[in-house]
Amino acid sequence: MSSPCPESSPDTQNSKASLTPLLHLVEDDLKAVNRMIVHRMQSPVSLIPQLASHLIASGGKRIRPLITLASTKLCGYEGVHHITLAACVEFIHSATLLHDDVVDESTMRRGVVSAHEVWGNQESVLVGDFLFSRAFQLMVEVGSLEILSILSSASASIAQGEVLQLLTAQNLATTQESYLEVVTSKTARLFEAASEIGAVLAERSAQEREALANFGRNLGIAFQLVDDALDYSVREAKFGKNAGDDFREGKMTLPVVYALERASPEEKAFWKRTLGELQQKEGDFNQAIAYMTRHKTLERTLENATCYAREAQTQLRIFSPGPFRMALEALTSFVIDRTS
Amino acid sequence: MSSPCPESSPDTQNSKASLTPLLHLVEDDLKAVNRMIVHRMQSPVSLIPQLASHLIASGGKRIRPLITLASTKLCGYEGVHHITLAACVEFIHSATLLHDDVVDESTMRRGVVSAHEVWGNQESVLVGDFLFSRAFQLMVEVGSLEILSILSSASASIAQGEVLQLLTAQNLATTQESYLEVVTSKTARLFEAASEIGAVLAERSAQEREALANFGRNLGIAFQLVDDALDYSVREAKFGKNAGDDFREGKMTLPVVYALERASPEEKAFWKRTLGELQQKEGDFNQAIAYMTRHKTLERTLENATCYAREAQTQLRIFSPGPFRMALEALTSFVIDRTS
Repeated sequence: MSSPCPESSPDTQNSKASLTPLLHLVEDDLKAVNRMIVHRMQSPVSLIPQLASHLIASGGKRIRPLITLASTKLCGYEGVHHITLAACVEFIHSATLLHDDVVDESTMRRGVVSAHEVWGNQESVLVGDFLFSRAFQLMVEVGSLEILSILSSASASIAQGEVLQLLTAQNLATTQESYLEVVTSKTARLFEAASEIGAVLAERSAQEREALANFGRNLGIAFQLVDDALDYSVREAKFGKNAGDDFREGKMTLPVVYALERASPEEKAFWKRTLGELQQKEGDFNQAIAYMTRHKTLERTLENATCYAREAQTQLRIFSPGPFRMALEALTSFVIDRTS
Repeated sequence: MSSPCPESSPDTQNSKASLTPLLHLVEDDLKAVNRMIVHRMQSPVSLIPQLASHLIASGGKRIRPLITLASTKLCGYEGVHHITLAACVEFIHSATLLHDDVVDESTMRRGVVSAHEVWGNQESVLVGDFLFSRAFQLMVEVGSLEILSILSSASASIAQGEVLQLLTAQNLATTQESYLEVVTSKTARLFEAASEIGAVLAERSAQEREALANFGRNLGIAFQLVDDALDYSVREAKFGKNAGDDFREGKMTLPVVYALERASPEEKAFWKRTLGELQQKEGDFNQAIAYMTRHKTLERTLENATCYAREAQTQLRIFSPGPFRMALEALTSFVIDRTS
């Protein structure tokens, strides 16, 4: 998958970058989603809600369920199932985070110590499985096989993307194309599904459904590219994630792919040692940032993210202008402009 | 949950203990299930089928999918969806095994080195997630929301049971009742679901559906009790699992609960050190077996298993006698008599 617009195109985001309009529009619905999340993570086995709430209640931005709420409302849906589906989407996302914590051995998530550091890997895997199963139970309650199909495919895609990411780690030959394949599978497919199910629930046309799927996918790619750039920033306190995680794990993200494209022989040797062989010493992370600054790879990554965000916004034009379309446009700009 | 018959009741299994009648009856169907398993574990990410086939193709007995095939045919079903559902059940089971390998840190599964020892924990977690998602994709293809509900509830129950097992490990105060709660959740619910969905697929009465659910649940408890007794046998080569795993991990299984009930002060100190504190040294496993032999705890466990097996067979009486009922009775006896 190639970038939807030339990398050199200027940043011309028009809409104000903010979550506020959307949060305002779906305030009551989001409260209902949060209540459902707390209610449906319950289990007679009390460790499950304890561990799950450690993650889920620790203040994520709920971007994926917000997308489901907004896309559903954009499509004029008047029922109640959007609450359930938004909770499903957050459960699936939370399950992948719990499993990803095990995978990544990262010690921090959303600014607090990871669940697996408090309770152990075993518990994180199993509570992830519980949340994942619970998501499917909720989908069954909604009763749409089409939505079950979309979300089960997205779940399979996430797992495939995560495996692919493991396989590309430490591989300096990783191309921009294969990097984008990872990003699309592991991140963008859930954004795509979260958005598409709004149109399905509201029984809108295939064209509108496709537009919302495309919106979500492009937004998800933009989101991940920004995440990857932020991982080479040093605003840890604000971002609430360990900056430098990707570096420590030898992940071949776009900032690295770009840095390698323009690397001098000396720089190539640096990347080979630090990412290819994971032989890292103090100061290496700052050196990596210095090389990235030299080649403007973070700027290039963010420009690329902006292109995907713009494509996401373009997809919304099929819908009449109105508060929900504007709020989704503002959310898209927010994804690009965020510093955390 | 208490035992369905007095522990002292004699073993009066009537049917010949064998998988052969069932394997003969569903031979073609089972081949179709195996083809579907191989076909549907495929992914563009080649590590996924490699790792999955390492587990799935390594020669499990396919007891759970066999139950689905048999219960469906017992109910007179003439369609093709039973193949898909049997594959689903095996995918869910395989996903839990992959996650259980991570959880248990056991190095052997079905006589070969565990997947996570070859590929690492990360891959095992993610391929488990893939198989789990794929199972739901297959269920969606069958198109029964009722079956989706049964299998998603069973999946949530498995995760709850596994967490509960972690919590009871090393706890010498574990009662027979709480042990059976673990077994019912982590093992018997999938047997129950595998059996019940046969009646649902064949659109049989609520009474027959309930009978098949009860059959599966009781069979599943019997199966796990026998597994737990075998873990204190020393026939590793034949059983293809590390005997002694439960001991090393401090799992409070029924043989241990029984041994503690009758333990002398000296024996209590032994169990406290070895299981409560996991302070184990060479010879301890054999000492554990010696204490169990003294108090006949393995025999008592197997007698208890036999009671559940008999209850399972009783549940089948609602169906007219015939080859499938007989084959399920023989399977039930096989579960008790197996040495591996």
